[in-house]
Amino acid sequence: MKTMEFLKSVTSKKALETINAFPVAPEKETVGIEDALNRVLAGDIVAHEDIPPFSRSLVDGYAVLVKDIQGAKETNPSLLTVTGQVRVGEASETMVEDGNSVMISTGAMLPDSADGVVMEEHVRRLKDEIEVTKPVHRGENICFRGEDIKEGDHVLNVGIKISPFDLGILAALGISNINVFKRTRIAIISSGDEVVDINETPPPGRIRDINRYTVSNILKKEGAQCDFLGITRDAIPDITASFEAAREYDMILVSGGSSKGERDLVVEVIKALGGEILFHGINIKPGKPAIFGKLWGKPVFGLPGHPVSCIMVTIRYVLPLLKRLKGETRTGEITVRGTLSTNIPSSYGIEEYVRVAIRNTGDGCFITPIFAKSSVISSLSQASGYIIAPEGVEGYEKGEEVEAYLF
Amino acid sequence: MKTMEFLKSVTSKKALETINAFPVAPEKETVGIEDALNRVLAGDIVAHEDIPPFSRSLVDGYAVLVKDIQGAKETNPSLLTVTGQVRVGEASETMVEDGNSVMISTGAMLPDSADGVVMEEHVRRLKDEIEVTKPVHRGENICFRGEDIKEGDHVLNVGIKISPFDLGILAALGISNINVFKRTRIAIISSGDEVVDINETPPPGRIRDINRYTVSNILKKEGAQCDFLGITRDAIPDITASFEAAREYDMILVSGGSSKGERDLVVEVIKALGGEILFHGINIKPGKPAIFGKLWGKPVFGLPGHPVSCIMVTIRYVLPLLKRLKGETRTGEITVRGTLSTNIPSSYGIEEYVRVAIRNTGDGCFITPIFAKSSVISSLSQASGYIIAPEGVEGYEKGEEVEAYLF
Repeated sequence: MKTMEFLKSVTSKKALETINAFPVAPEKETVGIEDALNRVLAGDIVAHEDIPPFSRSLVDGYAVLVKDIQGAKETNPSLLTVTGQVRVGEASETMVEDGNSVMISTGAMLPDSADGVVMEEHVRRLKDEIEVTKPVHRGENICFRGEDIKEGDHVLNVGIKISPFDLGILAALGISNINVFKRTRIAIISSGDEVVDINETPPPGRIRDINRYTVSNILKKEGAQCDFLGITRDAIPDITASFEAAREYDMILVSGGSSKGERDLVVEVIKALGGEILFHGINIKPGKPAIFGKLWGKPVFGLPGHPVSCIMVTIRYVLPLLKRLKGETRTGEITVRGTLSTNIPSSYGIEEYVRVAIRNTGDGCFITPIFAKSSVISSLSQASGYIIAPEGVEGYEKGEEVEAYLF
Repeated sequence: MKTMEFLKSVTSKKALETINAFPVAPEKETVGIEDALNRVLAGDIVAHEDIPPFSRSLVDGYAVLVKDIQGAKETNPSLLTVTGQVRVGEASETMVEDGNSVMISTGAMLPDSADGVVMEEHVRRLKDEIEVTKPVHRGENICFRGEDIKEGDHVLNVGIKISPFDLGILAALGISNINVFKRTRIAIISSGDEVVDINETPPPGRIRDINRYTVSNILKKEGAQCDFLGITRDAIPDITASFEAAREYDMILVSGGSSKGERDLVVEVIKALGGEILFHGINIKPGKPAIFGKLWGKPVFGLPGHPVSCIMVTIRYVLPLLKRLKGETRTGEITVRGTLSTNIPSSYGIEEYVRVAIRNTGDGCFITPIFAKSSVISSLSQASGYIIAPEGVEGYEKGEEVEAYLF
């Protein structure tokens, strides 16, 4: 049957393989450390110096030679002469000789010869002497030069998304200009004769543009720069003009086209412009009528019109490609395991994404499906994630342990 | 002993109670929907209309009266006359009368009288008639008016952090200007005679300012606007001047002051400016020397100088207050449960935060502690979270199930 043709969809696995094989070549730029949070590192960072650059005391106390206070105790303290003091921020110029000690603050530079620091609490201060009431082992209360980072250490790898902690490492090394991959620029087009801008009152038969906001913000959260190129009517010239306006972007997303006729127009325009359709339809629910192609060497997605379908395709198929486009290599998804609180029916032969609520209680983690049609956007606000019922599974039973992916 | 005084620290529970009792009064402002991602909603959203605003077909097919096709099957199809068509975006003006049907596209407006839609795949189209080969139940393949959102529904609550899905709901309702709480403005001060700007080469005994970058980016990730007010020397006039410059901010954070003398200066200045110390020291590791006070009605934190201590206090104690300052009420932390892969020793009587690596394998989730001194920032880059060993626990054993908080 002619109408069945678009149902020749690929499996989820095949779709992801196709997406992951799409050639990408992210460009680089330099940003200041103030603007580097969540950007993707474009080159490995190798330490050019030791951190800390000198051995430091971790406590307020006295720098000593460990051998001098072996066996020290409350009833039989070791007596040491105090020959000086190192304050925080000062260069230490004194040495600790046999039988001597140097007063030292937390963070201050350890005198060269010292090999332990006694905490102030384990010392009785006399005039120019101290009684040490507890021994320390070699290196106790010291952070040695290079103990955090050693010169030559490979501290950060290309492809990581820069975290506040990574920025701490870069700051420690004095790296204030950072080589990152450029932000991915994505063109967002809404299509459909029924779609109106949210500032308009939709006349009968028409609805407001939802997908523009959900899709662009899912991608924005992942660091993409999304530009909205407008709502296009279901006509070849209109869709063609929208694509032409998107020519300079790194990726093009067209949402809408719920009906077969509308989808066919998008396919037709991609081909007419010299592009190629890589798949048309994925064997998933919701989200089946997704299109993926290549136009002017750039990836193009045709996203389903129903809001929930559109979101699920964005999360499962567009985001992995965005990660590659922005040069990110760490791809771990966060999942939680929990006990299913009701049965989940699912269709054999199709991969289903079931939105779920996740509830942590004293008795463990409980996962409850939220059943709603793919057009019902309000169902997503209550969901904190989704579970995947793969093609070969006919559903899950109450009480089973399942794995949920977090939104 | 005088030097023991600062050790009279509060428990973690008491510290959080004090922080949670701090009075806050977040202010409101209006932002456009384009800028609303991750902002905190300042008022409940109640739907002023039904979504969808009309009943819609979920498939390409024929709108029918369900009673007309009861018992339809491949070998005994029901014959219906096709009296019209509703395209997507059009107002439906036809009715479906007994024995009739109307051709309809996905997303198109359902004719008033129709109560089911037959998918195109279950229909044989003749000239002006169709043979329906499968019955539908009432409401099948329809998304009814108000099925997503009903007029009067309470769709979003004050205090939520606005997600891409929430933006979809706001878009569906045509709400393009959104009432949110103002961003929290935080002043960040680094203190310490040993601290130099990262663009300087630290002379012997000095180190670069790390905390400025870790702290401000942890808070920035949570939507705060952080301004760095500079590095202040360990002297009353310098610290006083820094506080004065921070007077107009919603919260003041001073990092550094690792040694007792430095911390005392911060306490002294807060008091001298008319402020109040609410606690000085928390019974935790790392992070013990944390200070919390009130100055000019605003919260002030003195954060420990060691980078890891500073980060842990920011995450465990500053972030909960930031959530309240920015009006956020949904406070669920994401945790994962997993099996401990080595023993974790911890001290009885102190709450310990142990950084961990989390690894999901086919055999389940494994949690491995990363042991490092509180001055070792590089240890955090490998950690994906931390576990809490409470005061009353002396450690955990390999193989135990533990709960990890994600960074």
